[in-house]
Amino acid sequence: MIFEKNDRILFTGDSVTDFGRRRPVGEGLGEGVGPGYVRTVESFLNIFYPELNLRISNTGNSGDSSKDLLKRFDEDVVALNAQWVSILIGVNDVWRQFDTPAIVEDQVSPEEFRANITEMIEKIKDKTKGIFLMTPVYMEPYKEDPLRKRLDEYGAILKELSEKYGCIYVDLQSAFDEYFKHRHSSFIAWDRVHPNQSGAMIIANEFLKHTGFDRNRLL
Amino acid sequence: MIFEKNDRILFTGDSVTDFGRRRPVGEGLGEGVGPGYVRTVESFLNIFYPELNLRISNTGNSGDSSKDLLKRFDEDVVALNAQWVSILIGVNDVWRQFDTPAIVEDQVSPEEFRANITEMIEKIKDKTKGIFLMTPVYMEPYKEDPLRKRLDEYGAILKELSEKYGCIYVDLQSAFDEYFKHRHSSFIAWDRVHPNQSGAMIIANEFLKHTGFDRNRLL
Amino acid sequence: MIFEKNDRILFTGDSVTDFGRRRPVGEGLGEGVGPGYVRTVESFLNIFYPELNLRISNTGNSGDSSKDLLKRFDEDVVALNAQWVSILIGVNDVWRQFDTPAIVEDQVSPEEFRANITEMIEKIKDKTKGIFLMTPVYMEPYKEDPLRKRLDEYGAILKELSEKYGCIYVDLQSAFDEYFKHRHSSFIAWDRVHPNQSGAMIIANEFLKHTGFDRNRLL
Amino acid sequence: MIFEKNDRILFTGDSVTDFGRRRPVGEGLGEGVGPGYVRTVESFLNIFYPELNLRISNTGNSGDSSKDLLKRFDEDVVALNAQWVSILIGVNDVWRQFDTPAIVEDQVSPEEFRANITEMIEKIKDKTKGIFLMTPVYMEPYKEDPLRKRLDEYGAILKELSEKYGCIYVDLQSAFDEYFKHRHSSFIAWDRVHPNQSGAMIIANEFLKHTGFDRNRLL
Amino acid sequence: MIFEKNDRILFTGDSVTDFGRRRPVGEGLGEGVGPGYVRTVESFLNIFYPELNLRISNTGNSGDSSKDLLKRFDEDVVALNAQWVSILIGVNDVWRQFDTPAIVEDQVSPEEFRANITEMIEKIKDKTKGIFLMTPVYMEPYKEDPLRKRLDEYGAILKELSEKYGCIYVDLQSAFDEYFKHRHSSFIAWDRVHPNQSGAMIIANEFLKHTGFDRNRLL
Amino acid sequence: MIFEKNDRILFTGDSVTDFGRRRPVGEGLGEGVGPGYVRTVESFLNIFYPELNLRISNTGNSGDSSKDLLKRFDEDVVALNAQWVSILIGVNDVWRQFDTPAIVEDQVSPEEFRANITEMIEKIKDKTKGIFLMTPVYMEPYKEDPLRKRLDEYGAILKELSEKYGCIYVDLQSAFDEYFKHRHSSFIAWDRVHPNQSGAMIIANEFLKHTGFDRNRLL
Amino acid sequence: MIFEKNDRILFTGDSVTDFGRRRPVGEGLGEGVGPGYVRTVESFLNIFYPELNLRISNTGNSGDSSKDLLKRFDEDVVALNAQWVSILIGVNDVWRQFDTPAIVEDQVSPEEFRANITEMIEKIKDKTKGIFLMTPVYMEPYKEDPLRKRLDEYGAILKELSEKYGCIYVDLQSAFDEYFKHRHSSFIAWDRVHPNQSGAMIIANEFLKHTGFDRNRLL
Amino acid sequence: MIFEKNDRILFTGDSVTDFGRRRPVGEGLGEGVGPGYVRTVESFLNIFYPELNLRISNTGNSGDSSKDLLKRFDEDVVALNAQWVSILIGVNDVWRQFDTPAIVEDQVSPEEFRANITEMIEKIKDKTKGIFLMTPVYMEPYKEDPLRKRLDEYGAILKELSEKYGCIYVDLQSAFDEYFKHRHSSFIAWDRVHPNQSGAMIIANEFLKHTGFDRNRLL
Repeated sequence: MIFEKNDRILFTGDSVTDFGRRRPVGEGLGEGVGPGYVRTVESFLNIFYPELNLRISNTGNSGDSSKDLLKRFDEDVVALNAQWVSILIGVNDVWRQFDTPAIVEDQVSPEEFRANITEMIEKIKDKTKGIFLMTPVYMEPYKEDPLRKRLDEYGAILKELSEKYGCIYVDLQSAFDEYFKHRHSSFIAWDRVHPNQSGAMIIANEFLKHTGFDRNRLL
Repeated sequence: MIFEKNDRILFTGDSVTDFGRRRPVGEGLGEGVGPGYVRTVESFLNIFYPELNLRISNTGNSGDSSKDLLKRFDEDVVALNAQWVSILIGVNDVWRQFDTPAIVEDQVSPEEFRANITEMIEKIKDKTKGIFLMTPVYMEPYKEDPLRKRLDEYGAILKELSEKYGCIYVDLQSAFDEYFKHRHSSFIAWDRVHPNQSGAMIIANEFLKHTGFDRNRLL
Repeated sequence: MIFEKNDRILFTGDSVTDFGRRRPVGEGLGEGVGPGYVRTVESFLNIFYPELNLRISNTGNSGDSSKDLLKRFDEDVVALNAQWVSILIGVNDVWRQFDTPAIVEDQVSPEEFRANITEMIEKIKDKTKGIFLMTPVYMEPYKEDPLRKRLDEYGAILKELSEKYGCIYVDLQSAFDEYFKHRHSSFIAWDRVHPNQSGAMIIANEFLKHTGFDRNRLL
Repeated sequence: MIFEKNDRILFTGDSVTDFGRRRPVGEGLGEGVGPGYVRTVESFLNIFYPELNLRISNTGNSGDSSKDLLKRFDEDVVALNAQWVSILIGVNDVWRQFDTPAIVEDQVSPEEFRANITEMIEKIKDKTKGIFLMTPVYMEPYKEDPLRKRLDEYGAILKELSEKYGCIYVDLQSAFDEYFKHRHSSFIAWDRVHPNQSGAMIIANEFLKHTGFDRNRLL
Repeated sequence: MIFEKNDRILFTGDSVTDFGRRRPVGEGLGEGVGPGYVRTVESFLNIFYPELNLRISNTGNSGDSSKDLLKRFDEDVVALNAQWVSILIGVNDVWRQFDTPAIVEDQVSPEEFRANITEMIEKIKDKTKGIFLMTPVYMEPYKEDPLRKRLDEYGAILKELSEKYGCIYVDLQSAFDEYFKHRHSSFIAWDRVHPNQSGAMIIANEFLKHTGFDRNRLL
Repeated sequence: MIFEKNDRILFTGDSVTDFGRRRPVGEGLGEGVGPGYVRTVESFLNIFYPELNLRISNTGNSGDSSKDLLKRFDEDVVALNAQWVSILIGVNDVWRQFDTPAIVEDQVSPEEFRANITEMIEKIKDKTKGIFLMTPVYMEPYKEDPLRKRLDEYGAILKELSEKYGCIYVDLQSAFDEYFKHRHSSFIAWDRVHPNQSGAMIIANEFLKHTGFDRNRLL
Repeated sequence: MIFEKNDRILFTGDSVTDFGRRRPVGEGLGEGVGPGYVRTVESFLNIFYPELNLRISNTGNSGDSSKDLLKRFDEDVVALNAQWVSILIGVNDVWRQFDTPAIVEDQVSPEEFRANITEMIEKIKDKTKGIFLMTPVYMEPYKEDPLRKRLDEYGAILKELSEKYGCIYVDLQSAFDEYFKHRHSSFIAWDRVHPNQSGAMIIANEFLKHTGFDRNRLL
Repeated sequence: MIFEKNDRILFTGDSVTDFGRRRPVGEGLGEGVGPGYVRTVESFLNIFYPELNLRISNTGNSGDSSKDLLKRFDEDVVALNAQWVSILIGVNDVWRQFDTPAIVEDQVSPEEFRANITEMIEKIKDKTKGIFLMTPVYMEPYKEDPLRKRLDEYGAILKELSEKYGCIYVDLQSAFDEYFKHRHSSFIAWDRVHPNQSGAMIIANEFLKHTGFDRNRLL
C-alpha cells in the first residue's frame, strides 16, 4: 500500500469526479465526497485500511475542461496540501468540439491540453508523494467514432506526460473497453460519459490497482 | 397534400413521441402535444396549411415498448378515430436487451415485435386513410454496434410490414445517419435516443416528405 | 445563403426573443437559446445548413423597452462580436402606454424610439455583416385599435431606419396580419404579444426569407 | 335592496367566476369565494349591508362551457338551494371555436347554448327568488372581430331568455365596452377574457346595479 | 374629487398596507400594489375616475413601526415625488409592547411616535398636495383592553398632528368600531390587526370619503 | 398520581389539540403527538414518571366542532381503548357563529353541544378509568365580548356534565384568564384561539394539576 | 461462485435494505435497487461477474419488523421467483421495545420473531437455490447495552434457524464489531442503525464472502 | 429566583441550542428561540414568572465547536449585553475526533477547549450577573465508550473552570445518565446527541434547578 498513515488523497476533475460533492471542498460527514467513484474509492480505503486514517477529498467541478481546472488549480488543489493528487480531466475539452462545434472558446486543443496538464503537474510535483493521471473516458468502444478517436489523442498525451514526470498513469479508457466486451456501454452510462455506480466500481478498481491495495483484505 | 380538411392525425409511441404531452390526450391549447417532434410537425401544418384545420394529437407514452403500446392501443389509438395514425415504437424493445439484460420481461424479441405491430395495423387499417410506420432510431452511426445492429432488425420488420399492408414507411434511422455525416450524434442527443429540438426538425422533415407537403409554401 | 461558415448570429430584444433563454448568453447545449422563435431559426439552420457551423445566440430580456435594451447594448450585443445582429424591440415601449398609462417612465415615445434604435445601429454597423430590424407585433388585426395603431408608428420608424442604414427590414406585423386572415389571433397568442410555437414558426419563416435560405433543402 | 335577511346568493360559471375558489363550494373563511369578482361583490354586501347576513357562494369552474356547467348543475347549483343564482357562462363555448378550431367537441353552438341555458333556468326557476344572467365578455371593443361578433350572438340569446323567463339580465359586455372608451382593454385583461381586480370592480358594480343596492350607504 | 389628472398617490406603512406588494415599489401590472386595501382603493379610482389617470403606489413594509418607516422614508416616500401621501403606521409600535414586552428596542413610545410622524410630515409637507394620516387599528372594540387603550393614544397623536399641519385625518379605528356593532371582529381579522378583503373595503371606503369621491358614479 | 403503569392517555379535540399530529393516530417516534400542548404533557410524564411507561396519543382534528368529533368518535376514540380520554372541543361550535354567521350548518348550538358531549361520554364512560373535559378557550379576557360570552355557556355545560357523570373538569378558560392579568392575550396567541408554546405550558400545567402529579419530582 | 447464469437474487428487509429503492420492485435502470448495501453488492457482481447476467432485486421496506415483512412476504418475495433470497430483518422488532416502549403492538418478541422467520423460510425453501439470513445490527459495540443485548438474542435465533434449515448465515453484527475495534461507530452511522456507504461496503463484503466470490477478479 | 425583572438570559452553543432558531438573534414572536430546550426554559419562565418580564435569547449555531463559538463570541454574545449567559458547547470538539478522524482541523483538543472557554468567560465575566456552563452530553451511558470517555474530559474542564471563575456548573451529562437508568438513550435521541422534546425537558429542568425556580408555582 503506497498510502501512509494520515495521508490526504485529493481527487479533482470534471463532473465525473464532482457528482454533486460538497462545497467548497468535498469531504467529511454525510458523503461530502459526493456519490461518484470517489465515494467508492473512499469506502474501500475506509473499510479495508482503517488503520491508515486516510483523508479523501474531492474538488471536481461539473463542466470543467482542463482550461477551467487550471484556472482554479491553486485554490482547489495546491492550497489543500494533499500528499496525493488524482486528476481526471479532458472529456469536456473534446466533447465541446462535437456537441457545440460553433462555440470555439469552450473547446481545448491537444496542444493546449498538454500545456494545461503540464502546468498542473509543475505546480504540485514537488509538494506531493505522487500524482495520478486518469484518462478521460468516452464509453464508445468503436474507436473510429470521431469523438472517441479525438479523445484518445488526449489520453495519449497523459501517458506521455506520466512517463516524463513520473506520474501514475491510470488507463480508465482501456478498463472500460475491456468491460464493454461483456456488456453494452448503455449498461454503464446513457450519455457515454457519466458512469453509474457500477461504472464507479470500474474506476475505483482501476485506480486502486496502482496503490498496492492488498486484495486479500477483502472477502 | 394527402391530408384533407378537418382530418385528425394521431402520433403515438414511446418517450420520443411523448416528451411530456398532456394527459389523457396530448392536444390543444398551450402545446398539449408536448415539446417534441409532434409539435414541430404541428407548427408546420398549422402555419403553412391553415385552411385544412388539421387536428394533431399525441398519445406517446414514455418507456413503452411495442408490448406496452399494444396493451393500450384500443384506448389510446383506436378509440380516437383519427384519419391518420403514425407509430414510432421499438427502441425500448431493444434498449432493454442491453441496458438491463437480466430483466427479460421488459424486452421484446423481433418475432413478438412483428406480431405486435401487425396487430396494431389490423386494428386500424380499415378505419384510417393511412398509417405511418416510423423506424425507431439509435443515434449511433456505427452499424456494428450491437444495439444499433439489433435495432436495424426491427426497422427491417417495419419496412416489411409497410409493404405488406400498404403503410407509409418513414425511415428515420437513415435520415439521422445522413445527418451524422455532418455532425456528431452528441449534437442531437446525449443518450443516442432522445432528440433535441434540432433532432425534432429532422423527424418532422422526414415525416412531412411523405405527406405531399408543398415546400413552396415556405420562405 | 447570406450566412457564411462559422458566422455568429445574435438575436436580441424583449420577452418575445428571451422566452427563458440561458444567462448570461443564451446559446449552447440543452437549448440555451430558449424555447421561442430563436430556437426555431436555430433548428432550421442547424439541420439544413450543417456545413456552415453557425453560432446562434440570444440576449433578449423580458420586459425590455428600447430604452432598456440600449442600456445593456454594449455588454449584451457589441461585446459579443457577432457577424449578424437581429433586433426585435418596441412592443413594451408602446404597451406600457396602454396597460399602465400612469407610469410614464416605463413608456418610450416614437422620437425616443427612433433615437434608441439609431444609437444601436451606429454602435454595430461597422462591426457586422448585416443588421436585421424586425417589427414588433401586436396580434390585433384591427388596425384602428389604439395600441395597434400606435405600434405601427414604431414599425414605420424601423422601416425608415432600415432604408437609411441598409439594414434588413423584417416586417413581422404584416406576416401575422396575413396569417390572421385564416385564423383568429387567439390561435397564436392569448395576450396578443407572446407567440406560441406556431407563432414562432411564422417569425422564423419570415426571418429566413431574408437570408437566402434554399427551400429545396427541405422536404 | 332585493336581497333579504339570510338569503344565499350563488355565483356559478367558468374561470371568470372560479378564480381559484375553494372546493367543493367556494365560500367561508379565508376568502373561500376566491379572488375574482365574487369577492368584490361579497365585500360590498358584507360591509354595507351587514344586517342582512347574506351568504355568498361560488361554484364557478375554470374551463367550463355551458355544456360542462349543465353536466354539474344539479350538484353544484340545484343542490345548494340558494335563493338567488347568478350565471356567467359562454365565453369558452365560443373561444374554442377560434383558439382550437379543430377540436370540435369542445365547442358549443348558439343553438346548443340556448338549450343549455334554458335547461338550467328550468331547473331552478321555481326554487329561487331570482336568476341573474350575465353576458360573457370578450374584451375586444372592435365589434367586427370574429370572436367578439360570435360571442355577441350568445349574449343576445341570454337577453332573449331573460325576457322570456323573467331573469335579471346583466349586460357586462356593454359595461366593459363603455369603460374601454376611456382605457385600452389591456388595462383590464391581457388575454381579453380574465379581468384583473379593476375589472372585477366593473362586474361587481354592474351586478349590484340590479339589486337595489343603495349607494348612499357608501362614502 | 381632490385628485387631479396624472396625480400620484402613495400609500405607505406596515403590513396592513404592504400585504405582499411588489418590490422595490408596489405598483403597475399584475397587481403590483398587493392584495390589500390599496388595491381596493386603486380599483375604485381606476374604474370610476378613468379620466384622471391616477398613479397608485405602495411602499408599505411588513413589521414596520414608525421608527422603521422613518429610516426608509427618504428612499421610499420622499424620492417618489408623489402628489399625495397616505401613512398608516403605529400598530407595531404598540403591539410589540404587549406581545414581546421584553424586547424593548422594538417598541415605540407615544413621544417617539409623535416625533417620528412629525419628522415624516416635515419631509414632505411642502412637496405634496396633501397628506393622509390614517389611524392604526386594533380590531378589539372593548376600549379598556390594554393594547387598544394604548393604541388610541397614538391615534390621538395623529389627530393632533393632522390639525397642526393640515393633514387629512382618516379615523379608521372609529370606522371599524362602527362596523363591529354589527359583526364580531373575527369576521374581519383573526389576529385583530390584518383585515381581510371585507376589511379592506372598510378602509378604502373611509379613505375615499375624504377625497371628494362622487358616489353617484357608482351603481 | 392517578395514572398507572402502561396506561394509555388519549387526547382528542380540534386544532388546539391537533397541531399537525401524525395520522391516523398521533403518537410515537419523532413527536407523533404534534407540537402542541399534548407534547408538553407528554414530556412531563415521560421525564418525571419514566417508570409508568405511559402511552400518550392524540386524535385531535383541525377545524372540528363537537358535531364533527362525534362523527369520528367511534373510530378515533372508542376503538383505541385508552384508559384515559381527554376532550377539548367547542371553540369551533361557537367561532363559526361569529366569523361566518351566514353558514349555519357549521355552527353548533348549546343544546346540540350538550347532546354531543353527552353521547361521547356515554360511549366511553364504562370503558375508561377517567374522562377529562377541558373547557374551550377564547383568549379574550373581556367577558362581555359576544364570542367569549357565548363560549362561556359551553364551558358551563361541560362543568354541568362533569358533575353529572363524574368527569374531571379542567377549567382552562379560568387558567388563561388568570394569566392574562399579567400578560396581554397577544403574548400567547395572535388569533385568540391557538396557543403558542407558552400557552401549551398553561394547558399542560392545568391538566396535570388534576392528575396527582408530584411537583417534588421537578427541579 | 455459487450464483449461476441468469439467477435472480432478491434482497428484502427493513430500511437498511430499502434506502429509497424503486417501487414496487427495486431493480433496473437508474439505480432502482436504491443507494444502500444492495447497490454495493450489485456493483461487485455486475462488474466482476459480467458473464453471469445476474438480476439483483430489492424489496426492503422502511420501518418493517419481521411481523410486517411476513404480511407482505407472498407478494414481495414469493411471487418474484428469485433463485436466491437474502433477508435482513429484526432491528425494528427490538428497537421499538426501547424507543417507544409504550406502543406494544409495534414490538416483536423473540418467540414471535422465530415464528415469523420460520414461516418465511418455509414459504421459499423449496423454491430457491439458497436463503441468506443476515443478522440485524446495532452499531453499539458495548454488548451489555440493553438494546444490543436484546438484539443479540434475535441474531442467535437466526443462527439456530440457519442451521436447522440449511440457510446461509451472515453474521453482520460480528463484522461490524470487528470494524469498531478500529473506528468508532459514529464513523459508520449516527443512529447506530443505518450504515453510510462505508458501512454498506462492510455488509456487501460480508455477504459476498458466502458466495464464493473470487477476489482475484479484483484489483 | 436569581433572575431579576427585565433581565436578559442568553443561551449559546451548537446545534443542541440552535435547533433552527431565528437569525441573527433567536428571540421574539413565533418561537424565535427555536424548538429546542431554550423554548422549554422560555415557557417555564414566561408562564410561572410573568412578572419578571425576562428576555430569552438564543445564538446557538449548528455544527459549532468551541473554536467556532469563540470566533463569533464578540458579535453573538458580548454585543448582546445579556445579564446572564449560558454556554453549552464541546460535543463537536470531540465528535469530530471520532466521526471524521482524518479531518484534524475540525477537532478541538482538551487544552484548546480549556483556553477557548476561558477566553469566553474572560470576555463577559465583568459584564454579567452570572454565567452558566452546561456540560456537553453524549447519550451513551456506557462510560468506557471512547467518545463518551473523551467527552467526560471536557465536562471536567468545565467543572474546573466553573469553580475557578464562579460560574454556575450545570451537569447535564449526569442528569441524562440518571434518566437512562429508566429508559434507553434511543428514547431521547437517535444519534446520541440531539435531544427530542422530552430530552429538552431534562435540560430545562436541570438548568432551572440552578436558578432558584420555585416549584410551588407549578401544578
